[in-house]
Amino acid sequence: MKFRRIKQTHKTDLESIVGHERFSTGESNLELHSKDESQHPPCQPEAVIWPVNKTEVSEILQYANRHMIPVTGWGSGTSLEGNPIPVLNGLVLDFSRMNKIINIREADFQADVEPGVVYQDLNRKLRHKGLFFPPDPGARATIGGMIANNASGTRTVRYGSTRANVLRLTVALANGEVIKTGSRSSKTSSGYDLINLIVGSEGTLGIVVEATVRLRGLPEDLSAVIVTFPNVDSAGKAVFEIMRSGLNPASLELLAPECVALINKEKNLGLKVSPTLFIEFHGPSRNQLEEITEMTHDICESIGCHEFRPGIGRKERDDILNARHELAETIKRNHPGRSHVVIDVAVPVSSYPEIISLAREESKKAEIPGYTFSHAGDGNLHLVFMGKIGDKKEWTIIDRINERIVSKALAMGGTATGEHGVGIGKRKFMEAEHGLSLEWMKKIKNLFDPNGILNPGKIFFSSFS
Amino acid sequence: MKFRRIKQTHKTDLESIVGHERFSTGESNLELHSKDESQHPPCQPEAVIWPVNKTEVSEILQYANRHMIPVTGWGSGTSLEGNPIPVLNGLVLDFSRMNKIINIREADFQADVEPGVVYQDLNRKLRHKGLFFPPDPGARATIGGMIANNASGTRTVRYGSTRANVLRLTVALANGEVIKTGSRSSKTSSGYDLINLIVGSEGTLGIVVEATVRLRGLPEDLSAVIVTFPNVDSAGKAVFEIMRSGLNPASLELLAPECVALINKEKNLGLKVSPTLFIEFHGPSRNQLEEITEMTHDICESIGCHEFRPGIGRKERDDILNARHELAETIKRNHPGRSHVVIDVAVPVSSYPEIISLAREESKKAEIPGYTFSHAGDGNLHLVFMGKIGDKKEWTIIDRINERIVSKALAMGGTATGEHGVGIGKRKFMEAEHGLSLEWMKKIKNLFDPNGILNPGKIFFSSFS
Repeated sequence: MKFRRIKQTHKTDLESIVGHERFSTGESNLELHSKDESQHPPCQPEAVIWPVNKTEVSEILQYANRHMIPVTGWGSGTSLEGNPIPVLNGLVLDFSRMNKIINIREADFQADVEPGVVYQDLNRKLRHKGLFFPPDPGARATIGGMIANNASGTRTVRYGSTRANVLRLTVALANGEVIKTGSRSSKTSSGYDLINLIVGSEGTLGIVVEATVRLRGLPEDLSAVIVTFPNVDSAGKAVFEIMRSGLNPASLELLAPECVALINKEKNLGLKVSPTLFIEFHGPSRNQLEEITEMTHDICESIGCHEFRPGIGRKERDDILNARHELAETIKRNHPGRSHVVIDVAVPVSSYPEIISLAREESKKAEIPGYTFSHAGDGNLHLVFMGKIGDKKEWTIIDRINERIVSKALAMGGTATGEHGVGIGKRKFMEAEHGLSLEWMKKIKNLFDPNGILNPGKIFFSSFS
Repeated sequence: MKFRRIKQTHKTDLESIVGHERFSTGESNLELHSKDESQHPPCQPEAVIWPVNKTEVSEILQYANRHMIPVTGWGSGTSLEGNPIPVLNGLVLDFSRMNKIINIREADFQADVEPGVVYQDLNRKLRHKGLFFPPDPGARATIGGMIANNASGTRTVRYGSTRANVLRLTVALANGEVIKTGSRSSKTSSGYDLINLIVGSEGTLGIVVEATVRLRGLPEDLSAVIVTFPNVDSAGKAVFEIMRSGLNPASLELLAPECVALINKEKNLGLKVSPTLFIEFHGPSRNQLEEITEMTHDICESIGCHEFRPGIGRKERDDILNARHELAETIKRNHPGRSHVVIDVAVPVSSYPEIISLAREESKKAEIPGYTFSHAGDGNLHLVFMGKIGDKKEWTIIDRINERIVSKALAMGGTATGEHGVGIGKRKFMEAEHGLSLEWMKKIKNLFDPNGILNPGKIFFSSFS
């Protein structure tokens, strides 16, 4: 399939859809839309366009489809697998001007939003209503981007990933058709589920122009605990036992000692430099939370924790969660001249102790700065390596480790990507993970986007089989 | 598209795949597979086959696809919209011999099952492990059938429908290919979500041959409450207020007085004949449940309930839930010479008081025996009418009411079918509910099943656009 370069005539036509101020081929705008927060090489689009409504999006897509111009949706560029890098150039659709919270349907625990809404901004608006939108990837992600990647985060262990929190979507397809799918009802058995096909498709099947998301009530009360362990293995075992016990934590995060040390240094939190679990519980009452905390204490102690510190206050809890959210940035900042890879696998929680041990061993052997942290309650491991820029040998080592950890995760019945999506970096594992299903994914891609204009080069090396 | 009749040569070939004892064209077998529990007219298949493994299913599908023979999967025939009635005859694939619980992965809260496993049988096996599979449609449904219909029930308000409880599927496609999709990890962002495409597709896209389902821990404790109200309107308002308050009930069922009267008569439960809410809460401790019950009491009292009866014991609670599960059967038994239609819509819970009032009005005006009950917490209304068999006038009235209630539900942002699926009876509402999306559903159907052999005549009047 042969894409066309954007020529002057295309520029004139595209500009006429949105007006002069919302179309740009300026170098700084191209540069700004050439990379996300991953290590994948930047690649500039040929033009950037800022639609303000679905009609514009539809017209732009129709035009691009007719003229064989690649189109890549853009939220805020916070993804970690190169998901929105326009590797085949073309047009970037930037959703920063479609960031209206259209309607908060408090009584139904629902909100209608445009794709450019940053989820923290939605949550700020919701706070005084006692509601929140649970998925919490950390960075200032847009809801459109979160839908594209099926983002998740520290609260997913209790409230599910983005997928579990989307009820209705309006989607512009490659040919410019705008379809609505889903319902405002909390359940339905009406026809094929197109919503879940769009969620996690990384903008390769359609572009979300409006979403109805599910909200939850803020917990009446919360309880936060920090537990330290003599080694990562025992912390891993505690994770498994806590999950097995059905205590239903709202967060269950593991930080290896090198992460704790870095957080201390940057944030002055004075945490003990040991393998550390940060655990949060949400509940309707203090009594209940105290019982749960006590049960968690028993589990951790029986595994031989060093220290069990309950009763973490809101401020300290916020500090720790913020530090956790900024960890990837902090790591980068502390290694000038190096670039990072985030290995992001997820496994059944019974296999979590084993995968976390493997990650530690690999990290030790590698002699490359490595940081292990984890949405542990989901069995979702992150291992960040900081490779020297330009040092082929280091990057080969990192690639091999990535391959070994992914292979192990797949052998355990897990997945090559727990939450960062396939993007560019995980394409090579898709065949091993999905087998024959991958061919059916490509067939679906070809059905929805026969010219392949939507975010080409992502998920699949080539969608044309 | 022209299907072929099953001729002697086909019979010989099909029989050779599974052996003589697992293939039948006998009248009683054809009769047993001609109807579900709906009022839709029976229609016999030409043959019934009982595969025992996925290889046989694959071979049967390959053969049927090559010879243009319709194939309809069969669980236990408990569906309510004619979903498995072989309206174009052909072959019924009966899964009663594929009913093995392959593996219970206790530590991961997962079970691997064959499609013919009846969910109550799985739950019986799980009980002593402190686990359960939450979706609870009531009838002795198979897990394969539940996946096909995205079944839900009394516990969905807290634990989600079948969709929320499936992690991994092995699916035989129309051409005989067997694909695996999903992961044992509790979350993933790896490629397109084919699982949710299969769940709810009513056997029209593929046939599930194995599933990994998600289990939950049995609640430490439960609290059940019966509340009666002076009228259905006020009960509806209480439902809305309870849901809005975020109390997270595990069941929230409404029974109109005529249902209570019938249950009393049949089951001798001695309930007060009034609009009644049955509410159940699951929690980790007695204290917490008492608090929640108290809050529920306050809400119901402020709306003017007649009687609030907390502390319902396990036995009485089981009796009530069983009576609720058997209600459709009980209604039928009490109206000889009449046949039933179940109107099954779901709406956002803020619209629940209005849809329930409309249902009551319509029921009163109709002068046809009508019963209103409801998975109220999900905004899911059931209205059963018992129409006189052969009385055209009554059936026209029922049809018009069904249309009015569905139209209203759709106007509220709801769905034509909360949990029974589209099957035969809801096809006529699909265009109104899905608009342009319906065409994309048909395109997906044609992609997966170009000959249209899988359960033809369901969801769409015709899948060929």
